[in-house]
Amino acid sequence: MTGVDEATIAAVIDRIAFDEKGLVPAIAQQHDSGEVLMLAWMNAESIRETLTSGQVCYWSRSRRSLWRKGETSGHRQRLVEFRFDCDRDAVLLMVEQQGPACHTDRRSCFFHALRDGTVRVILEPAETAS
Amino acid sequence: MTGVDEATIAAVIDRIAFDEKGLVPAIAQQHDSGEVLMLAWMNAESIRETLTSGQVCYWSRSRRSLWRKGETSGHRQRLVEFRFDCDRDAVLLMVEQQGPACHTDRRSCFFHALRDGTVRVILEPAETAS
Repeated sequence: MTGVDEATIAAVIDRIAFDEKGLVPAIAQQHDSGEVLMLAWMNAESIRETLTSGQVCYWSRSRRSLWRKGETSGHRQRLVEFRFDCDRDAVLLMVEQQGPACHTDRRSCFFHALRDGTVRVILEPAETAS
Repeated sequence: MTGVDEATIAAVIDRIAFDEKGLVPAIAQQHDSGEVLMLAWMNAESIRETLTSGQVCYWSRSRRSLWRKGETSGHRQRLVEFRFDCDRDAVLLMVEQQGPACHTDRRSCFFHALRDGTVRVILEPAETAS
C-alpha cells in the first residue's frame, strides 16, 4: 500500500482516538502467516508518514522522535493494510516483515511464554515462531 | 491453562513493566487461526485472575474495574498461553475465543480497513475474518 492521498490520510487520522499523549498502540502482524510481531506506538505524524511511504513508521516514546522501522537495521515493515478497531483506539498493521522484527534478532518480540509453570524463551534469534 | 501457582504468578507480574497507571496493553489472538481479536488492558490484579482461572480478565479503563471478558455475553476467552514481549511492556494472550470477541458481534474488533482509498468495514457481525 503506497501513495494514499492526503484527504484520505486526514480522514483516517481524524477517526483515530489518540490518547492524552497523542498516541495510539499499533500491533504489527505478518500479513500471511498471522504472526504477531510487535506492539509499538504511533502518533498522527507517524501514521501520515506510514500511509504516504508504505513503510511503517512508529513514534518512539523513549527517543521522542519518529521511528522509521528498519531504517538502520534494514528490517523494514512494508505496509500491506492499515486497520483499526471498533473503539478507534488501537491500530492493526498488516505488514510484510523483512527479517526479524525484534531488536534481539528474533522474528517476533513476543518470545517469552509461561509454560510448565515457568517463563520460557520460545523463540531463538533469527528463527520463525514455533 | 489453569491453576498456575501463586509463586509463578507473582514472578510473571514482577517481570511486567506496567505503565504509570499500572496497566499494560494486551493483545488477544485466536491461538489456532492467528486472528488478532482485540486489544485491551490489564493490571496486576487482572493478570493474577486470568492466570488463576484460565479465563481472560482485563481491566476496564472506562469502568475502572475488572472486566471478566464474556461474563455477561458468554463470549469468553479461555487462555491457551500467556506471552509477553522483549521490553516486557506488552502482553500477547493466545486464546480460544467463544463466539465474537467484539461488542458489535463481530469476530474481531479490527474490522475497519483502509482499502481503495477509503475506510471500509471488512467484517460483518457474526462472521469470521476475511
